[in-house]
Amino acid sequence: MDWEKMEERLLTLLNTCKHSELRGALMMLNEVDIARFMETLDREKLLLTFRVLPKDISADVFAYMSPEQKQTLIESIGDNEIRSLIEDMFLDDAVDFLEELPANVVKRVLQNTSEEKRNLINQFLRYPENSAGSLMTIEYLELKSGLTVREAMEVIRKTGLDKETIYTLYIIDDARRLIGILPLRTLILSQDDVKIDDIMDVNPISVKTLDDQEKVAETVREYDLMTMPVVDNENRLVGIITADDVMDVIEEENTEDFEKMAALTPSEEEYLKTSPWQLAKNRLPWLLIMATVAIFTGMIITNYEDLLSASAMGIVLTACIPMLMDTGGNCGSQASTLVIRGIALGEIEFKDLGKALWKEIRVGLIVGGILAVFTFARVYLVNHGSIPVCFIVASALFCTVILAKSLGCILPLTAKKLGFDPALMASPLITTIVDMASLTIYFTIATTIMRMNGL
Amino acid sequence: MDWEKMEERLLTLLNTCKHSELRGALMMLNEVDIARFMETLDREKLLLTFRVLPKDISADVFAYMSPEQKQTLIESIGDNEIRSLIEDMFLDDAVDFLEELPANVVKRVLQNTSEEKRNLINQFLRYPENSAGSLMTIEYLELKSGLTVREAMEVIRKTGLDKETIYTLYIIDDARRLIGILPLRTLILSQDDVKIDDIMDVNPISVKTLDDQEKVAETVREYDLMTMPVVDNENRLVGIITADDVMDVIEEENTEDFEKMAALTPSEEEYLKTSPWQLAKNRLPWLLIMATVAIFTGMIITNYEDLLSASAMGIVLTACIPMLMDTGGNCGSQASTLVIRGIALGEIEFKDLGKALWKEIRVGLIVGGILAVFTFARVYLVNHGSIPVCFIVASALFCTVILAKSLGCILPLTAKKLGFDPALMASPLITTIVDMASLTIYFTIATTIMRMNGL
Repeated sequence: MDWEKMEERLLTLLNTCKHSELRGALMMLNEVDIARFMETLDREKLLLTFRVLPKDISADVFAYMSPEQKQTLIESIGDNEIRSLIEDMFLDDAVDFLEELPANVVKRVLQNTSEEKRNLINQFLRYPENSAGSLMTIEYLELKSGLTVREAMEVIRKTGLDKETIYTLYIIDDARRLIGILPLRTLILSQDDVKIDDIMDVNPISVKTLDDQEKVAETVREYDLMTMPVVDNENRLVGIITADDVMDVIEEENTEDFEKMAALTPSEEEYLKTSPWQLAKNRLPWLLIMATVAIFTGMIITNYEDLLSASAMGIVLTACIPMLMDTGGNCGSQASTLVIRGIALGEIEFKDLGKALWKEIRVGLIVGGILAVFTFARVYLVNHGSIPVCFIVASALFCTVILAKSLGCILPLTAKKLGFDPALMASPLITTIVDMASLTIYFTIATTIMRMNGL
Repeated sequence: MDWEKMEERLLTLLNTCKHSELRGALMMLNEVDIARFMETLDREKLLLTFRVLPKDISADVFAYMSPEQKQTLIESIGDNEIRSLIEDMFLDDAVDFLEELPANVVKRVLQNTSEEKRNLINQFLRYPENSAGSLMTIEYLELKSGLTVREAMEVIRKTGLDKETIYTLYIIDDARRLIGILPLRTLILSQDDVKIDDIMDVNPISVKTLDDQEKVAETVREYDLMTMPVVDNENRLVGIITADDVMDVIEEENTEDFEKMAALTPSEEEYLKTSPWQLAKNRLPWLLIMATVAIFTGMIITNYEDLLSASAMGIVLTACIPMLMDTGGNCGSQASTLVIRGIALGEIEFKDLGKALWKEIRVGLIVGGILAVFTFARVYLVNHGSIPVCFIVASALFCTVILAKSLGCILPLTAKKLGFDPALMASPLITTIVDMASLTIYFTIATTIMRMNGL
């Protein structure tokens, strides 16, 4: 059955107040799909559906709802319901949810949380945004060093139900320091009386609470991990990060790069949910900066007023300015995109600058050469330019391509070295810089050639 | 100990031929790090290190080596070694590896593989690139419907060692159809004599062998899955895809979008390993297309020759062309980036076109208004333009911004609707289109204003 049909039936059950049937129907769905269904409901129906949900899955469904629907729901339910909802949620989901709420609602939620959970939540809310600490959950399974396989299995059977994952077990010493990890698989396939210390992995890979989420994602991906333990400065285990959260981080970091590379202030809001004012605010700063820089481009042109307006070839030269600028910008953005992406994936570092630059220069020679021949023919045949004019345009284009390719590789790597985000050195900024450089090259060549030809 | 020190010690052990010590030292490392260490070795040392590796981890280490080092190694080792290496590898790793090798080496490898494994590999090599089938592994654990928890645990203990993951168990009926999934966690926490059919999840989410890997990644991320079952057209279970492979797919798809959005032919090669010829070949097609389109931009300018060269204000108008073009291109690329990214993340669909367009028009009014005021002042103060000229430039900019924002939202969504990749409608193409439109607007406004003023 497809989604639309299912949604229709659920709505019919909801509208005809068949609550038991609705509960039964919802129980056939995945939590994610239930949350998706609830997305379109108004306050009253949302509340009704949520109360119809079986108790054991309502916290899970809640975690998948949109921030707006979460807030609507929290504002509609009573204090007791809030209390049991928060108690049933995994800590990382609860913290994520609270971070999205307005302050007054947070206060009401925290007032209705047990003291123990409240202290934990407050502690988590203090981790900086995008740090490993803010991503982690504390619902992992830890085992004391020295247990046997049989004892470990008993611990798991007793405490495993409340843990987000039990597939990687963390072995700690008396000081709570992380000394090993043990895949559940190894445990299950081992003899009952073996000591876990003898079968555990003694070199666990971990991150620190204050490490950036980008580092976490890179490490998980590099080592193909399912979960990543998080330790404090004394190497004491404080939490774990699961693969599903890491995937979200990867997409988030990619979105941020896409936005920076298009001269946008990064935003975590969904596009359709962002107001035009906010969108305008995210876009204006860079547009204003680049429009200011463009003053210089204008000055360069004004500087060569005589060349452009007085001479007969002036109009052909003017007509070629857009092509020269666009090609330069496109060449620069091709190179910078590859280099920025290479840096993000850990494939290129500052020490490769020489190698990358030499590669870009060779690419520039090939691409620039072909484009120059193409353009020479084009200006000659289409614009009826004289041979000197064709030569001016083609040679300026050739130099611009090589320069654009080189800048596209130098700027992101230098930015990275200086501690800036290489993604800022993408298309828009490079285009503006290449514009100025290419016009200067263009007019210098033009003046020289024309002087040589006595024009 | 940091990586450089460890690497140095390993090299010392390798160079002084202390093979047992080297083996011991390597055993302290993660497979990924061993592969990283082997990356820098020449053929002879690579072979030596590989042979020193404990037998049970050599296939894992091999899977993490670069394609170049894998090929070097395969060419150096004997037939028997190839045989045992392939037998020890997980099927998906073996298939990935064979896809990277030249045909003659593939032949030698397949000749040294058992018939059963060879048939499986051949079957996998036939799945189209980037399909779910090409990503999956067959080392999963399936359970026949009707078993009890105790019987299931026995099956796992007996066969779990060779499986890539045992944390999600797949329940099949007599026709091998996938009828449920069971997290190992649920199994462990259940009573011994319960039937697995009573505790399994009966609505398993799955993909088909020919589904695109992008769909797989989206579904895994949406439902927070650790593994994704792959079924054939009759819903028979044929394989699973694990979260680590999904993360690689996510990064791969993102890289492809970055490349397309910078007018590059996508390539799966690492930047530093791609030859300048190949890079030039990936970049030229779009550059040539856009340089051809730029012919029309040139024609528009030539068309207004009189306006630009004869009148006194011509040079100011010419000087403002780059700023107008750049701002238009930047505005278009900001909008298109957000919309393309929104489509990729499943947040925006074609049916949202009206909503998105209305949003972009409002953003355009705000951003265009502010930029127009800024530009009016700038042309008046810096370029000493007359009031009519300032008005021409500012109003053309205002219209260009709104047009660019609208196109940045219409083009990607329309491309998606027509079955093209929205990422192609990014900055370079939009810039070229906006260039032509903005120049036409610019000159039309200029001619009108000047005629009105009798200039």
